[in-house]
Amino acid sequence: MTRTTVSSATREITIGFDQPFTLIGERINPTGRKLLAAEMAEGDYSRIQSDALAQVAAGANMLDVNAGIPLADEPKILAECIQLVQGLTDVPLSIDSSIVAALESGLAVYQGKALVNSVTGEEDRLETVLPLVKKYGAAVVGISNDETGISEDPDVRFSIAKKIVERAEDYGIPRSDVIIDPLVMPIGALGDAGRQVMHILRRLREELKVNSTCGASNFSFGLPNRHGMNSAFLSMAIGAGLTSAITNPLHAPEMAGIMGANVVMGHDPNCKAWIKKFRDPAPEGEGSENRRGRRDSKRRRTAG
Amino acid sequence: MTRTTVSSATREITIGFDQPFTLIGERINPTGRKLLAAEMAEGDYSRIQSDALAQVAAGANMLDVNAGIPLADEPKILAECIQLVQGLTDVPLSIDSSIVAALESGLAVYQGKALVNSVTGEEDRLETVLPLVKKYGAAVVGISNDETGISEDPDVRFSIAKKIVERAEDYGIPRSDVIIDPLVMPIGALGDAGRQVMHILRRLREELKVNSTCGASNFSFGLPNRHGMNSAFLSMAIGAGLTSAITNPLHAPEMAGIMGANVVMGHDPNCKAWIKKFRDPAPEGEGSENRRGRRDSKRRRTAG
Repeated sequence: MTRTTVSSATREITIGFDQPFTLIGERINPTGRKLLAAEMAEGDYSRIQSDALAQVAAGANMLDVNAGIPLADEPKILAECIQLVQGLTDVPLSIDSSIVAALESGLAVYQGKALVNSVTGEEDRLETVLPLVKKYGAAVVGISNDETGISEDPDVRFSIAKKIVERAEDYGIPRSDVIIDPLVMPIGALGDAGRQVMHILRRLREELKVNSTCGASNFSFGLPNRHGMNSAFLSMAIGAGLTSAITNPLHAPEMAGIMGANVVMGHDPNCKAWIKKFRDPAPEGEGSENRRGRRDSKRRRTAG
Repeated sequence: MTRTTVSSATREITIGFDQPFTLIGERINPTGRKLLAAEMAEGDYSRIQSDALAQVAAGANMLDVNAGIPLADEPKILAECIQLVQGLTDVPLSIDSSIVAALESGLAVYQGKALVNSVTGEEDRLETVLPLVKKYGAAVVGISNDETGISEDPDVRFSIAKKIVERAEDYGIPRSDVIIDPLVMPIGALGDAGRQVMHILRRLREELKVNSTCGASNFSFGLPNRHGMNSAFLSMAIGAGLTSAITNPLHAPEMAGIMGANVVMGHDPNCKAWIKKFRDPAPEGEGSENRRGRRDSKRRRTAG
């Protein structure tokens, strides 16, 4: 049974088919967040602090940290953010950059075993990122595209995933330390996007026997009620073999979809986590958003 | 590709792996509804009228009709209710009784091709119900238990399903007219209930190649936030091969889970149904219950 372990200085978590789903909080990322990007470029990390704490409080098992700001000193900022977040929380981190120097500076300061996000099937990426992953004893996200782009044929995407896993093994990285991202496309643009992902996920679990992750919210891009759609997508994907996702834990529908899927998969013994989260009595038909809001405020009062 | 067609006098619907999910409204059932049972026993069917119309308006593709009232004349009441509901709506019906005489009196008045709910793997049930199904050219729900009860081994339940399908074929009923209910147990009582169902559903699709149905809400019995749990269960089950369910269309989380699963499976081209239902702008994070309420009232105003 494939298990990927990642850790902070004091806490280890396991990603696997026999484990509760791993939610990697996506919020610490300046892409599309102009204000955050401007603050980060000026060395103001206050919003990163609050984003880190809020995501962990909402149930994130790991946090993704991205510092991709055009024209900024990304290696320096990424390393500073990682140190900051590791000082605030004990969840393991995903070090997220497309710049190899930034990945390296992040890895150099990281305490524990990190997840490197990411390598693709492109030759130059494989040759530069995988040695770093090996050097630091990290795990890595492998994204199933290559020089030819993103194939619409899920079996081509699977074969790229296979290439990444095999190349990692050539570098001495066990396949249990490679987590494949099958690439989730917006269903509004590509009507076959959902079936493609489920097909690859089943092959990843049954044939390649590797863990998987994805940027789940990409699926609902452009649609109304994105949270409801993400929730259905996540529940079905977890059934097909998805073992982690980079997503936003602050949204109640997605959390209910993930926590419900944990119950269905038998990964929430005695429904303990589900009952703890939802046990407050609420009128029939009331939205889970409201219930969560109440529980959160209660938790804050207890904590404060 | 297996397809089950059922019909009313004027409308045919198809249940299948390449079709949008079929929701069979569960509300017309006096079990556990004391007031409805008392009204039905006295010949007052007003609540059945409103239940029928409300379920169809909420998106039910079929309606289950059950008249199981202790000491009442079930064959008579069931036939009257079927005629009443067929006069009000054009969705096909599922004729639901454990009494063979009631199934026959319902079938005798039914206009179209009905779904008989149900037969089990018990010998005496097979021998009495299947000839009726054949006589009236109906489809039938086969429940995967037999004289020995409900097995906790999903492969035993699968083998009972196989027996029902084969016995139906002996009676001249094609397997495309048999819809298997794998029996959904409460997850709170049986921690393996979810995995069991997913396992049987995959075997029903891949090996037996038959459609499936279930009483979905049974899964969440005894848990808080049942609608959220049912929604996650339904999304995952549809991914595993579930093609219909007997459930309550009046609950927004379940409907979002089903409609989202239709999108993911590629059974809602251009996300048309999803967008139609959810396109009203709503503040980020607002519950879908509220959005649905607004849409419904708008529809009523337009219709009235």
